[in-house]
Amino acid sequence: MPEFRQNLLSNEWVIISTERARRPEDFLEDKKEKPPRPRLSPKCPFCPGHEAQTPPELCTVPGNGGWRVRVVPNKFAALQPDLAFQPEPDGRFLKATGYGIAEVIVENPRHDLSLATMDVAAVRDVVAVYKLRYLSAAAGDKISFVNIFRNHGVRAGTSLEHPHSQLIATPIVPPHVRYPIERAVRYYDTYSRCIYCDMLAEEKRKGERVVAETETFVAYAPFASRTPFEVRIMPKRHQASFGEIDDAELPGFAGILKDSLARIHTGLGDPDYNFIVRSAPVGDEKAKYFHWYLVIIPKLTTPAGFEIGTGIYINVTYPERCAEFLRNVKV
Amino acid sequence: MPEFRQNLLSNEWVIISTERARRPEDFLEDKKEKPPRPRLSPKCPFCPGHEAQTPPELCTVPGNGGWRVRVVPNKFAALQPDLAFQPEPDGRFLKATGYGIAEVIVENPRHDLSLATMDVAAVRDVVAVYKLRYLSAAAGDKISFVNIFRNHGVRAGTSLEHPHSQLIATPIVPPHVRYPIERAVRYYDTYSRCIYCDMLAEEKRKGERVVAETETFVAYAPFASRTPFEVRIMPKRHQASFGEIDDAELPGFAGILKDSLARIHTGLGDPDYNFIVRSAPVGDEKAKYFHWYLVIIPKLTTPAGFEIGTGIYINVTYPERCAEFLRNVKV
Repeated sequence: MPEFRQNLLSNEWVIISTERARRPEDFLEDKKEKPPRPRLSPKCPFCPGHEAQTPPELCTVPGNGGWRVRVVPNKFAALQPDLAFQPEPDGRFLKATGYGIAEVIVENPRHDLSLATMDVAAVRDVVAVYKLRYLSAAAGDKISFVNIFRNHGVRAGTSLEHPHSQLIATPIVPPHVRYPIERAVRYYDTYSRCIYCDMLAEEKRKGERVVAETETFVAYAPFASRTPFEVRIMPKRHQASFGEIDDAELPGFAGILKDSLARIHTGLGDPDYNFIVRSAPVGDEKAKYFHWYLVIIPKLTTPAGFEIGTGIYINVTYPERCAEFLRNVKV
Repeated sequence: MPEFRQNLLSNEWVIISTERARRPEDFLEDKKEKPPRPRLSPKCPFCPGHEAQTPPELCTVPGNGGWRVRVVPNKFAALQPDLAFQPEPDGRFLKATGYGIAEVIVENPRHDLSLATMDVAAVRDVVAVYKLRYLSAAAGDKISFVNIFRNHGVRAGTSLEHPHSQLIATPIVPPHVRYPIERAVRYYDTYSRCIYCDMLAEEKRKGERVVAETETFVAYAPFASRTPFEVRIMPKRHQASFGEIDDAELPGFAGILKDSLARIHTGLGDPDYNFIVRSAPVGDEKAKYFHWYLVIIPKLTTPAGFEIGTGIYINVTYPERCAEFLRNVKV
């Protein structure tokens, strides 16, 4: 019997579709083998030795006679930092200069690795750089929201193979981000508690959707997952902004991120995916009502007209079964 | 210089990205030739002669010794009509039985046609059936929202080639649909006017984003288009619900729909696309604040982590140039 489930944070619904139901294993059978990638690719602008093909670096983590992580401005930046932000009417509409920050975080010198396959020390370097660049962007003049994300594979919207993440910081907080915050504020005003903390407590109590739990983080398949194998990683300690993560918490974050991605990589045959670090807007770092998290969205299905028209995602797999499958992957 | 543009209806933003800018012609050059399709496909469940492969038909438009349009329940229905709708708590979460209506509208007996290539009389049959099935679904017990949509091609989420549309009706109005309505209500309460009517007047006044205009409809590239060649078709006469369209208006709607799809088909080499008929919720058919429309979203780019994380779409083409390009396509 198909089932509606409501996302507690956004109030959006999903449909868990039993008529189209698929076992977790089915996704692996679908999978086309990806060709192996070289350690160094002669045409890749992010490989060592090709540094001149990118704009000058903003920062690096040095090591091994070169760099271990390298951050550069996005050469094809959707937004530009050297503009004033000026919203102005265009007839009845509103437009604004494309002010913002767009950076690429080259995660590793090796072309053939990904966060799932590099060693955990290398992932620690990457998340430490996430924090540095987050704080740098948030300090930017008129920046209101900082978005760190990763696109892995063509279905996730990237054609660049070299392991990299991106940061885009905007002068505006879009409604898509603001609506769930408004809900969280109202929840806080009613219960004096963070809705995200309460949700995490519920997931831990239930247990069946938990993929992994450490001293400081929980990875779980959300109750109202939009897609098969969606995984959300949340810090146990209440913190509204990713910029508030303690340096002492970074290794734990790196560990559970690598673990979750490795389970997806190994269990599902390296599927394409996006991940996003969802953080409070700049200025709300100490908010009692919001809680940052990272969400991994594997690209195993294609949103169609119904999803676009209603925001209701049809998910062909129970999150409980996805969590069980991922828990059992040997990593 | 990149530019933010705000969607007047949803308040969401897009970025028109000049650094990644592409000319309309570039999309055609990208295009891989699609293999020709047969008039009749031996394995297709929607081709004439294979009617036993679908559930029994809900209605047909008869003709040529068989049917011209055929409506069947979706064999792999995401929602089922024979359930009670019963939301209930699951711990802190909310779930509900998957009650709803899911139908497939087989648009034409011929496997090799699409709405862009069939003759306009056949498209008239299809939109007349849209109206019939819209009204039938809206009359359903506890149905709150009726969504008619079309997925064309693999990138748009369908693997079934035979020309078809779908209807999914739900017992709930999701926030994704409700938020823009709430904005429209507030606009109406301020100006005593429909925000959609005002927007349409603005598009007609400006003219540069208009693709086609008839006595009763306008097709235009929205100011804040999320994707290249997005086209919105709106009736000039204020009507909140697609179910309110006059039978006398159906030929005009069929004409501009076929014209818009033909321009996209011919100009861009038959790209995959979704279209959606966005209508007022059931019960709000006479609302003064809402206005139905159809939106065509060609699948020429892939949303990535930034779009998923922020709801801000990066669009690599100016809507004004897309409209000009489509106006100039010979159909």
